[in-house]
Amino acid sequence: MTYCLGIKVNEGMIFASDSRTNAGLDDFSVHSKMFNYSVGDRCVVILTSGNLSTSQAVFHSIESDLESAVITDRNLNICKDLEEVADYVGSLSAKHSKIKYEVSEHGDIDFGSYFIVGGQIQDQSQKMFLIYPQGNFIECSENNPFFQIGETKYGKPILDRIINLDISLGDAARAALVSLDSTMRSDLSVGPPIDFLVYKKDKINLDIRDKIRLDSPYFKDLSDMWHDKLQSSFQELPKFDWE
Amino acid sequence: MTYCLGIKVNEGMIFASDSRTNAGLDDFSVHSKMFNYSVGDRCVVILTSGNLSTSQAVFHSIESDLESAVITDRNLNICKDLEEVADYVGSLSAKHSKIKYEVSEHGDIDFGSYFIVGGQIQDQSQKMFLIYPQGNFIECSENNPFFQIGETKYGKPILDRIINLDISLGDAARAALVSLDSTMRSDLSVGPPIDFLVYKKDKINLDIRDKIRLDSPYFKDLSDMWHDKLQSSFQELPKFDWE
Repeated sequence: MTYCLGIKVNEGMIFASDSRTNAGLDDFSVHSKMFNYSVGDRCVVILTSGNLSTSQAVFHSIESDLESAVITDRNLNICKDLEEVADYVGSLSAKHSKIKYEVSEHGDIDFGSYFIVGGQIQDQSQKMFLIYPQGNFIECSENNPFFQIGETKYGKPILDRIINLDISLGDAARAALVSLDSTMRSDLSVGPPIDFLVYKKDKINLDIRDKIRLDSPYFKDLSDMWHDKLQSSFQELPKFDWE
Repeated sequence: MTYCLGIKVNEGMIFASDSRTNAGLDDFSVHSKMFNYSVGDRCVVILTSGNLSTSQAVFHSIESDLESAVITDRNLNICKDLEEVADYVGSLSAKHSKIKYEVSEHGDIDFGSYFIVGGQIQDQSQKMFLIYPQGNFIECSENNPFFQIGETKYGKPILDRIINLDISLGDAARAALVSLDSTMRSDLSVGPPIDFLVYKKDKINLDIRDKIRLDSPYFKDLSDMWHDKLQSSFQELPKFDWE
C-alpha cells in the first residue's frame, strides 16, 4: 500500500508520502511517490497512490512534455492556473491507465492511480486538488482542509482532531508526521522513508524538503514523545466505578 | 458498517460493539450486534459484523437449539468447551450464508458474517475466538490479545499502543471505549449506542453490562477528556527548527 497526505492551512501547505510499495504480500520495494517542480513563477507538488506503473508513466509524461523541443499542447509551464494543472495530470492518468488496460490480458488488474496535486503560481492563491483515477478532480475546502490517498484510515483520527485552517504550519507538519507514524505502526505495508515537504504561502520556491527516516533525530523524538504522551494521557482518564 | 472489538487480558475480557447498520448509503438503522448467554456453568458472548441477515439467522438458530424440546446435536449448553462453541457458531454461519447464497438471484451480494466469540465454562480458562465467514476460526494469542471486526482501522492505532496481557481490566475497558470513540468520530457508518460488556476472569456470571450512549456521563467525560489531552499533548511536541 501507500499513504500520502496533503494539508492546506492558511499559512501554507504540507505534503508527506511514505515510500513502500508492494506487488503481492512478499514483494515489497521502495519508491518515492512524490514529484515536485519548482521553476520560474510556479511550484507544483504531486503525490500518488494506486498502480505504480500508471503513476510513473504520468510522471514520465510530465517530464517529457517539459523537455520536449516541439511545442506541446500542455505542460506544467504552460498551464495558466492550478485547475489546469490538475486537469492536465488527470488527463494523463486516465490516458495511461486506459492504454495499460487495453494492452493487458489480465482484466482483473486495477490500473488506476490517485493523485494529490498542490502548488502556487505567482500572483495566484495556493490550491490543492484530489484527482480520481477517472481524471476528474475536487478541490480542498475550508471544511476539509486535507486530502489523504492510499491507506488512509489509521492516520485519519488524529487529523480529524487537529487540522483546521487556522493552525500553524508547524502544527500541520507535526500532525502529518504523527498521522504517518500511527499508520506505519499499524500497517506493515506503509513504510519509511517519508518524503516531506513544507510549502509556505506566497513563496514560490519550495521551503523545506526532507527525506525522513525512522531514525532521523526529529522524527524519532516526535514519535517517542507522542507515544509516551498517549500512554500517560491514557493513565489519567477517569476510572470506572467498578474498578 | 459495524465495529466490534473483543479484548482478552489476564484479568478478564472486554466486549464492545456499535449499533449502526446500513443497507446502502441512505438506509441506516440501529441493531445490536452483541449476543450473550450466561446460564449454569457457562457464559458466552458473541459479536458480529458482515451480513446482518446471516448474523441474525445464526443468533436465531442458537436460541432455537437451546429452546428445542427435541435433543439437538449441539447447543450452547451441550458444547464441552469454548472451541466447540466456536466450531458450532462457525458451522451455523457457513450454513446460513450458503443457504442465502443459493436462494439468491443476486450473485454479487456477500452473505458472509464474521463473529468474535468469547466466554468461560466453569473449571476451564477464558477463551476468545475470531470466526471467519467460511466457519473456520482462530484463537486470541498472547502476542495479539484483541480481535476487531468490521470497520477496524480507525480504532486500531490506540489498541496497538495500549493493549497487552498485563494491563488492568479497567485500562482494557477504557482502551475499547477510546477506540470506539475515535472510530465514530471518523466514520459516520459506525454509531451509538455501544453495547459494552466487562467479564472478569473466573466469574461465570457476567459482571458489568451496559448500553452506552454518546451522552452517557462516563462516556462523555472520557471522550471529552481524551480529546483535550490529545490536543494538549500535541501542543507539547518538539518544534521544527524552521518555525
